[in-house]
Amino acid sequence: MPEINYSYPQLYDFTKAIFLKIGCSEVHADTASKTLLSADLRGVDSHGIARLSGYVRLWEAKRVNAKPDIRIIHESPSTAVVEGDSGLGLVVAPFAMKIAIEKAGKAGTGWVCVQNSNHFGIAAYHAMMALEHDMIGIAMTNASPLVAPTFSIDKMLGTNPICVAAPAGKEPAFVADLATTTAANGKLEILQRKNLATPGGWVQDKEGHPSHDPHILKQGGALLPLGGDREHGSHKGYALGAIVDIFSGVLSGANYAPWVPPFPAYVPMPSRQPGKGIGHFLGAMRIDAFRPAAEFKESMDDWIQGFRKAKPVPGEEKVLVPGDPEREFEKERMENGIDLLQTIVDDLKQVSHKLGVPFLQ
Amino acid sequence: MPEINYSYPQLYDFTKAIFLKIGCSEVHADTASKTLLSADLRGVDSHGIARLSGYVRLWEAKRVNAKPDIRIIHESPSTAVVEGDSGLGLVVAPFAMKIAIEKAGKAGTGWVCVQNSNHFGIAAYHAMMALEHDMIGIAMTNASPLVAPTFSIDKMLGTNPICVAAPAGKEPAFVADLATTTAANGKLEILQRKNLATPGGWVQDKEGHPSHDPHILKQGGALLPLGGDREHGSHKGYALGAIVDIFSGVLSGANYAPWVPPFPAYVPMPSRQPGKGIGHFLGAMRIDAFRPAAEFKESMDDWIQGFRKAKPVPGEEKVLVPGDPEREFEKERMENGIDLLQTIVDDLKQVSHKLGVPFLQ
Repeated sequence: MPEINYSYPQLYDFTKAIFLKIGCSEVHADTASKTLLSADLRGVDSHGIARLSGYVRLWEAKRVNAKPDIRIIHESPSTAVVEGDSGLGLVVAPFAMKIAIEKAGKAGTGWVCVQNSNHFGIAAYHAMMALEHDMIGIAMTNASPLVAPTFSIDKMLGTNPICVAAPAGKEPAFVADLATTTAANGKLEILQRKNLATPGGWVQDKEGHPSHDPHILKQGGALLPLGGDREHGSHKGYALGAIVDIFSGVLSGANYAPWVPPFPAYVPMPSRQPGKGIGHFLGAMRIDAFRPAAEFKESMDDWIQGFRKAKPVPGEEKVLVPGDPEREFEKERMENGIDLLQTIVDDLKQVSHKLGVPFLQ
Repeated sequence: MPEINYSYPQLYDFTKAIFLKIGCSEVHADTASKTLLSADLRGVDSHGIARLSGYVRLWEAKRVNAKPDIRIIHESPSTAVVEGDSGLGLVVAPFAMKIAIEKAGKAGTGWVCVQNSNHFGIAAYHAMMALEHDMIGIAMTNASPLVAPTFSIDKMLGTNPICVAAPAGKEPAFVADLATTTAANGKLEILQRKNLATPGGWVQDKEGHPSHDPHILKQGGALLPLGGDREHGSHKGYALGAIVDIFSGVLSGANYAPWVPPFPAYVPMPSRQPGKGIGHFLGAMRIDAFRPAAEFKESMDDWIQGFRKAKPVPGEEKVLVPGDPEREFEKERMENGIDLLQTIVDDLKQVSHKLGVPFLQ
């Protein structure tokens, strides 16, 4: 499939114009665009501008409020709960992360739950906000139910990602950002486009049997938790996804489990809503609330260099440190632009036409 | 292999007598025995009394200090670092968890890193201490390097478990306790005894090739991170194990990565020690620092019941909630006693003889 190259500033300007057009403030449109496009920069194509039309459709369906009154509804010295007022998660989550960072500045750590939000893009964007403050950042979110827990036919959890970002000294930061499933939905989409079979342990069919069909989710199938099946530890992936759901949804007063609102606006809302919107969980730990930041960063350099020096298995060049591939993508794409598939470009042109916002110049 | 049944009080009395004999205080011997035996009660046989002789050997090798001066060396309103003074992790970790709970009482959350400790038994024991305070408990520890990260031949991480315990109302608590490997070492030991092959994705040989040999660790092989290989998400299991190592080891000033001291006393200490002993990370989040505890627990009941009602795949009776199997073990074993393998009993008899402590009556 043909691809068209755009620079980051081109995509930023268009994305921001779209968010402004649907009614976001200047500040919110800027934040939402940066959050969304950080996915494209970091090579997580499924979570970036490819979703812009989806956010617009959620706004059209009145599931996203472009002028939210985002506010703290409860707090303690090291915690807060944020009401997202149905705002874009792309804006609500950075708001909450800032509070976590402020709390950590005073109390040593800050932990902020969010209720009544929407999808927040990639977790890494939020967690990495902590790095420049010499803090460890943590970000989680629940999401639409696509995942069948171990032994289940029913889809009870989202791909519920966890991100942890820890600063280093001379080395780049450690950034682990992972869906708690064997493979994220974006990986399935790649196989769908190429019409290739999925490896074992990625998906099951609607009756709970193992499947290799990348289209199986459209036929009632489900993604599988990290591990794939019980023998390979899927109960652990399930437990991790559950932890993310409890921290993001139950602790915040958002929806949880199969009742998390879907991302596609054409999918009806779940039959019941035990909470409000989608939930996030954001944390910041000030390094020097534990030990001097310079010491920690020196040890992180040592840690990272240890892994880089580990002997690779035959056929592999080196052992990677979490965050390496995304950082290389970011450098390369900031320099050389971002290739978008023709289908994504067509989709963006439709949004452009629908909202009367000039397309990428 | 024959098994011999002992009651919990029998095992407790013997274990405590051993810890007293090596010089632990009355209080420490009590705590260490309860922590250690919680593993046997919860069905994690590899981490319970089967390790008692190992702890004694660490004490003989002067790697465990039976009279530690466990103390806070740094703190902020929501954090502390505890120096374990080479004490038993079985005692040091509960000390640290109590501080986390106290901090959470005042600041909303409490996060305590531990340096210079030893193996702490099962993570669940520590995390579950938070439950009676209407708090969510979190426990992690690093451990001796047995795990090869994705693409690595070298063993760089321990099985580095994560436990999260969250209180519910009418339902029993949610307790997820998982090694960040496909299978814990204890699972390998079971296959060794039965002389059965390991499933794929559990271990690799010393050259980094996939292996099905449960004895492969003794021949230079390694455990694999949750996921098994790159295609099945092992980079995620690796990232999770790395997060545990950074929180437990780097943040605390303990050793980390391949330099974590080994559990078997006959294994020499690593060539370098960038920190002190083994590290743990313990956390407590007070529920009502986020929302009223009664509301949260009601939602947790709803969450748990939702999963219990999920439709099971063919051949399975029901979908489990994390903590279900361990709780059933605990109830059953508290009532009917704990079966120990003859080899474990023989090992305990040797300890009994060596220290002059009468064996189980």
